[in-house]
Amino acid sequence: MPAKNCYNYQTFDEVKNNPDIDAIYITTPNALHHDQALRIAKAGKHVICEKPMALNAKQGQEMVDACNKAGVKLLVGYRMHFEPKTLEVIRMRKAGDFGKIRFFQGLCGFNIGDPKQWRLNKELAGGGSLMDIGIYAINGARYMVGEDPIWVTAQETKTDPIRFKEGVDETIQFQFGFPSGAVASCLSTYTMNNLDKFFLDGDRGWAEMLPSTGYGPIKGRTHKGELTQPVTTHQTVQMDEFSEIILNGKQPIVPVDGNEAVRDLKIIDAIYLAVKTGKKVELKLV
Amino acid sequence: MPAKNCYNYQTFDEVKNNPDIDAIYITTPNALHHDQALRIAKAGKHVICEKPMALNAKQGQEMVDACNKAGVKLLVGYRMHFEPKTLEVIRMRKAGDFGKIRFFQGLCGFNIGDPKQWRLNKELAGGGSLMDIGIYAINGARYMVGEDPIWVTAQETKTDPIRFKEGVDETIQFQFGFPSGAVASCLSTYTMNNLDKFFLDGDRGWAEMLPSTGYGPIKGRTHKGELTQPVTTHQTVQMDEFSEIILNGKQPIVPVDGNEAVRDLKIIDAIYLAVKTGKKVELKLV
Repeated sequence: MPAKNCYNYQTFDEVKNNPDIDAIYITTPNALHHDQALRIAKAGKHVICEKPMALNAKQGQEMVDACNKAGVKLLVGYRMHFEPKTLEVIRMRKAGDFGKIRFFQGLCGFNIGDPKQWRLNKELAGGGSLMDIGIYAINGARYMVGEDPIWVTAQETKTDPIRFKEGVDETIQFQFGFPSGAVASCLSTYTMNNLDKFFLDGDRGWAEMLPSTGYGPIKGRTHKGELTQPVTTHQTVQMDEFSEIILNGKQPIVPVDGNEAVRDLKIIDAIYLAVKTGKKVELKLV
Repeated sequence: MPAKNCYNYQTFDEVKNNPDIDAIYITTPNALHHDQALRIAKAGKHVICEKPMALNAKQGQEMVDACNKAGVKLLVGYRMHFEPKTLEVIRMRKAGDFGKIRFFQGLCGFNIGDPKQWRLNKELAGGGSLMDIGIYAINGARYMVGEDPIWVTAQETKTDPIRFKEGVDETIQFQFGFPSGAVASCLSTYTMNNLDKFFLDGDRGWAEMLPSTGYGPIKGRTHKGELTQPVTTHQTVQMDEFSEIILNGKQPIVPVDGNEAVRDLKIIDAIYLAVKTGKKVELKLV
């Protein structure tokens, strides 16, 4: 990359004068996304942002509004939305292969390492496992079931208050109800291994993804057999698709825009509220 | 069987005068267990009772007390407590093969048929799927994790109020917390197929049973590979073991007595209370 296309956190507003640059991908800690996205939009460049797009739905909506106002696109790093086996399950669901969807299960987590990393810092991460890895189960529930939840309940468990300080969740179980009557049971954790599973159950069939969202080869099977779609490098495909969306207005099968991300953030807000109040939280995402 | 050893529901109190009979197995609808057990105890015979042992913990404790008073044993039809692959997972957990247990998942359910059957009659069943099939996840959570839960949360969903009338639950998601910090996510349903799964996750390994409690061959695998213990007919083994317990005082690996059943009933009471109140219910089982 030529030196004239390199910026730092202080100088990147100057991209507005650089026609070589179409978009900026924000891969900083969660708490920085909002301000950086607003600065990029102001510079007239398209915004690509890692998930979670922001710390909460309010910030997320402000990012959407700023990008709309500036006439730039806002895309979010939902790499699973381009993963071939994931897309095949979505295709099968839409084709009715599973019949009426009854249940989704999303178990997402891993045993997190270095206690000093930003992901365990409330100021930078905005929360704990739910922001980082639980969001895969939240987003996955939506694209696997094909509906947005209308209620959420949630329960937090903390076994290590040293590593997981106030405001940084270690493990949260959460449940969704959908308009059709389907339900979801999910778990987000920073202290369990062997969890990276999706299970979708309909009255005529089922799909299991295991692993479901990790970087390793995604594996999946349905009542019809193993999924044989090719293994891809998620980030490569995502960047190619994002380029198509930005340059040629391509419509992705599952949305990757700011509005999609705001829905996840509204659900995250609701899960934290359900943990805090111990009560079912009703949701209206549309 | 000789005619003199045959009784009907009106006459079975007369077994007290029949030395050929050691025990009576109650396989009637749930609501009848309590009174029939009390009559059998009064007749001085050992009681074997199908699960759920009673409609609630109060009834269950009365059955335990009556049998204690009469000096007879009270055994409950927990056939999984003698299933070889299940016992192997319990052995591995006790041996520390899975390390510290973090998570259990129990998904139990099936799509129930005939809407006129007693299982869908509140008066006879005392509830719905939770009484009949959810109890496997409840009991399974306890023998897989090796602890009794200290809290429960639960959410009911009803999609078919015609088949599942007031007081007859169709689907309940429920969650447990254990003293060690382990958690469980469970589901009980009468309207989903493809659910008969246990998953136990520790910090050094895992076990999956699929199917986990059905009559078909139980299958299981752990991080060490497939479980290869023999397939048994659960009821045959259970009856042989119950005979050993009654005749020779054998101690089963996992308890099958009335106290074990009362703990499950206390949890069932708590799940229904959590559904009703929408709140976390604290449990003290010992």
